[in-house]
Amino acid sequence: MSEHQILFLPSRQSSSFEEGTTFLDAALELGILIESTCAGLGSCAKCRVVIPSGARDPGPVEKNLLTPQELTKGVRLSCQARVGGKGVCVVPETSRLVGEQIMVDGHRSAIVLGPDLRKVHLTLDTPELGTKFFDAEELSRRLGVPVSQNLRAVRELPHLVREHKSSVTAIIDQDRLLGLEGGDTTASLYGVAIDIGTTTVAAKLLDLREGRVVGVASALNPQKAYGADVVSRIHYCTEHEGGLELMHRLIARQVEDLISKLCRQADIKAVQVYKLTVAANTVMQHFFLKIDPRAVAEMPYAAPFQGPITVEAAELGIMINRLGVVYVLPNLGSFVGSDITSVLTVLDVDQTPGIQLVVDIGTNGEMVLGSQERMVCCSSPAGPAWEGATIAWGMRAAHGAIERAEILEGDLQIRTIGGVPPIGICGSGLLDLVCEFVRAGVIDKSGRILGRAAVPETLPAALTDRILEQERGVSHLQIARLENNEHILLTQKDIREVQLAKGAIAAGIAILMKELGVAAEQITRVSIAGAFGNHVRGVDAVDSGLIPPVDPERIRFIGNAALSGAEAVLLSKDARLRAEKLARTIEYVEISDRADFQDTFVEAMRFRGTP
Amino acid sequence: MSEHQILFLPSRQSSSFEEGTTFLDAALELGILIESTCAGLGSCAKCRVVIPSGARDPGPVEKNLLTPQELTKGVRLSCQARVGGKGVCVVPETSRLVGEQIMVDGHRSAIVLGPDLRKVHLTLDTPELGTKFFDAEELSRRLGVPVSQNLRAVRELPHLVREHKSSVTAIIDQDRLLGLEGGDTTASLYGVAIDIGTTTVAAKLLDLREGRVVGVASALNPQKAYGADVVSRIHYCTEHEGGLELMHRLIARQVEDLISKLCRQADIKAVQVYKLTVAANTVMQHFFLKIDPRAVAEMPYAAPFQGPITVEAAELGIMINRLGVVYVLPNLGSFVGSDITSVLTVLDVDQTPGIQLVVDIGTNGEMVLGSQERMVCCSSPAGPAWEGATIAWGMRAAHGAIERAEILEGDLQIRTIGGVPPIGICGSGLLDLVCEFVRAGVIDKSGRILGRAAVPETLPAALTDRILEQERGVSHLQIARLENNEHILLTQKDIREVQLAKGAIAAGIAILMKELGVAAEQITRVSIAGAFGNHVRGVDAVDSGLIPPVDPERIRFIGNAALSGAEAVLLSKDARLRAEKLARTIEYVEISDRADFQDTFVEAMRFRGTP
Repeated sequence: MSEHQILFLPSRQSSSFEEGTTFLDAALELGILIESTCAGLGSCAKCRVVIPSGARDPGPVEKNLLTPQELTKGVRLSCQARVGGKGVCVVPETSRLVGEQIMVDGHRSAIVLGPDLRKVHLTLDTPELGTKFFDAEELSRRLGVPVSQNLRAVRELPHLVREHKSSVTAIIDQDRLLGLEGGDTTASLYGVAIDIGTTTVAAKLLDLREGRVVGVASALNPQKAYGADVVSRIHYCTEHEGGLELMHRLIARQVEDLISKLCRQADIKAVQVYKLTVAANTVMQHFFLKIDPRAVAEMPYAAPFQGPITVEAAELGIMINRLGVVYVLPNLGSFVGSDITSVLTVLDVDQTPGIQLVVDIGTNGEMVLGSQERMVCCSSPAGPAWEGATIAWGMRAAHGAIERAEILEGDLQIRTIGGVPPIGICGSGLLDLVCEFVRAGVIDKSGRILGRAAVPETLPAALTDRILEQERGVSHLQIARLENNEHILLTQKDIREVQLAKGAIAAGIAILMKELGVAAEQITRVSIAGAFGNHVRGVDAVDSGLIPPVDPERIRFIGNAALSGAEAVLLSKDARLRAEKLARTIEYVEISDRADFQDTFVEAMRFRGTP
Repeated sequence: MSEHQILFLPSRQSSSFEEGTTFLDAALELGILIESTCAGLGSCAKCRVVIPSGARDPGPVEKNLLTPQELTKGVRLSCQARVGGKGVCVVPETSRLVGEQIMVDGHRSAIVLGPDLRKVHLTLDTPELGTKFFDAEELSRRLGVPVSQNLRAVRELPHLVREHKSSVTAIIDQDRLLGLEGGDTTASLYGVAIDIGTTTVAAKLLDLREGRVVGVASALNPQKAYGADVVSRIHYCTEHEGGLELMHRLIARQVEDLISKLCRQADIKAVQVYKLTVAANTVMQHFFLKIDPRAVAEMPYAAPFQGPITVEAAELGIMINRLGVVYVLPNLGSFVGSDITSVLTVLDVDQTPGIQLVVDIGTNGEMVLGSQERMVCCSSPAGPAWEGATIAWGMRAAHGAIERAEILEGDLQIRTIGGVPPIGICGSGLLDLVCEFVRAGVIDKSGRILGRAAVPETLPAALTDRILEQERGVSHLQIARLENNEHILLTQKDIREVQLAKGAIAAGIAILMKELGVAAEQITRVSIAGAFGNHVRGVDAVDSGLIPPVDPERIRFIGNAALSGAEAVLLSKDARLRAEKLARTIEYVEISDRADFQDTFVEAMRFRGTP
């Protein structure tokens, strides 16, 4: 696939995107959140942007919802407009998603720029004969950090004094001297925020002097070749000599490649990068830091460390500046990793009144519920249904996947990724389908597909025709016809898989609510994070019973907020301290050994949607 | 030369000594100070010890000063008795030099055992399902040190939990976790105190659990091959590619060899050694730490660091335990190194009332004067006269060197090292000779050797005969006749060299006294440190004008107290903190650029002795 450079204004962020990517997704990848109440379904028309160049021609949805005048001016719906060449996209203030303290240009103000990592240039005094004089001690006094603790820096001092006429730049991180450079090098200070996911690795290059995002890049986690999920990768480690070393090298190399790519695009050198901040689930942290992950996979499933971990980049074999340092955010629990800590760092749960729920939906669901007074968290194994596994026609979110479904004008309407003929169903499409059929009365609240005779009389015939009755009262649903006349089906078993997946998350949330004594109507805000979560519609999240029955207006989709959190701690010492405080104070609730878990889970498998 | 093992009692310290070493010197090498008012001249008889075995037969001095009963019981004078085989030496309480807070068995009480380096064994809790649990965090809580800062330790945790049933020993230094070991390894915890001198390297192995000296060893500094003094070694570094690396490797290798030797003797392994504490002059520190020493040798002669420096032993390429750490004591000034800080750490200048003077006499003289209220220090280049250089018949303190001289029964009596026929004069002999001839009136106070006609009429003829008149009124003194009938001479130029050497030190002291407004009679204690200083007689030190005119009773010879100080900071956190406080508070006085230096120096060159 070809890629095209898109420049976003007014934030001046740019990156390369795959041909056919929606501008909504492209913006999200850069951390620019665009209002999209319908979650990209092309019905709310709130995601208006102006694209003077670089987009494919408007399709029927845009022609329907935008006026000819708007279209002439280049106004587009960012959820519909797709990248077709090198171009520019202007995001008007009215289309920006505000209200969350997300670390993106436009509402950067929530994070006060003040990084742990800083450079100080100074010229050392020339010692006078007769003074008790030591350059290192003068430097310590003027910097406020103990220089003699860093032998490497002390060794360089005589050279710097002689060759650079005592002009020295000190690189300091967390009040610790990383090292010295000759002359004034303060003009150059970069860092990279990284989110290491099981599937995807995302990285953002930042200019730490201005707090400016210079570029964003992402890539697949190359460990995928050794298993799609963390359990199989841990298994690989335990079964193969050198397995951990391999997993570590794969991810370290990928991180290094992303940094190289970002530096190339920004026309800077990797030696100008001094710090990496990393958010990741606990297993990815084990691999990244080269720590045996077996403890997480075996009873009693306890990670050996909470963190934060600070380590020299060189120790991890990552080539940035020779003085470079890596900060890995702290975890909340053995299965509630620093990706969640990172998300919370850019939200305001601990800073504003009201009870908030934060959910990250993935193979593992992680959730945090609470307020300024008290916060609790848990994790729940949702399984790989959202990624298409265990689903008859399931597939990942790729070209040809049904990502949206809606019953309109008496029949099911679908939309695929890339707008091509459908070849399967991805997670968001799966949830859409199930919810639409529940709302239409084709699937009952227990999850059973009703027979043709049992559906509501008012059900349009086209929908009834989609019911494919099997033996022993089991039915499937026909979703779309393939070119070979075969049908993409939604099977009864698929619906059970959806129930198990959403039930696990819903049960976790229910137990947290019980733990805090909180009812659904008390929850003032639900923030849904993660790539999959970002494609879920609020109404589906509620109707499916995935989240408690809150007004969909209270639901926010915050995208890859884990990367934003890593960005926040890179840019701000205060944010870093907040992340560490959150990790210390949020209580971990283990749900699987609770007496009430089974009942809660069974109840959570039911659907909520009308009727 | 053959070496013999000598066990000292009651301290149970033992080491190997060269055949012919006096027991006084042997004891000193182990840090056992024996009272010796006559400084080993064999006249005070205060240095009595009991040597059941291992000594050569008593000579005339002992037979004269000890009763036959005493000799039968094995009582000996330690300054006269020489090692002749494997043996035992009992040092009675009455012969021990007390009053100084020297770190030796017998008066160890001054230093309360409580090292920075400690081992803690604990068994980690087994996590219960449902707890927010991280082994590293439990460990941090229980140890009171942040474990996650040490990635190496975190990496080992899963293995330790699995293979050692959660039984873990933490090695902590200065409230920092060095690392972890599986099981209970607290039974083994050793450290080595090291004094790196320009000429000699001394090391003492200590059991840190009991504060017990296990062994002592010393060796020549192998850098000697590249110059006897620090200036020529720095010169070698600046002129040769890789010179610093070579100097560093030579000294690191010698330190490692001494540690190996000590471990072999004690039947322990080098991996049982976790810490080295190092006292050294500033140039030796540069070499040891691999820091370019040029700054010390070039205007404005400023060392780049004061210290203390803490560094991993592995970083210096010294093989002890893989977690091992090296602590280098802080300096007082660019030419007043941590050897002096170390000496002060075992004295009580800052802890008791009264004004004290501490002098370390070497190629470079370093002195500290002061009290609890205020302390000042300086250094003064005495030159290599004390080591025999620049002296006509000068030589190092080796076999055949005249080390003692006294005018007795109308003529000069001499004693050589090893009791063999004389072949030259070492530092202590030189000062003895000069002082004796000054006192006899053969040399006047300006340092001139008088002609035969000008000496006092009462001068014994044998002494007058020793005056060898040359042309232009210059005379030399005949000291001893060699086998070839040639004479060992003390020349007029030799005396000038002695005057320059002692004048430099005396001028430094005089300026410090002026700085503090202190008169000689106010000085309550003079402590003379260093190998040469230890062989000087108090009366000579005063009569020569080397030190101010104090009652010789107030003079103490403290031997290699630099090694004792390194030992103190190894055994006691309090001592380490005191050393660091001393380094912060003692004021450095540069003497060479003072207006009054020249006059003070000229005055200081005069002799003081009667008549």
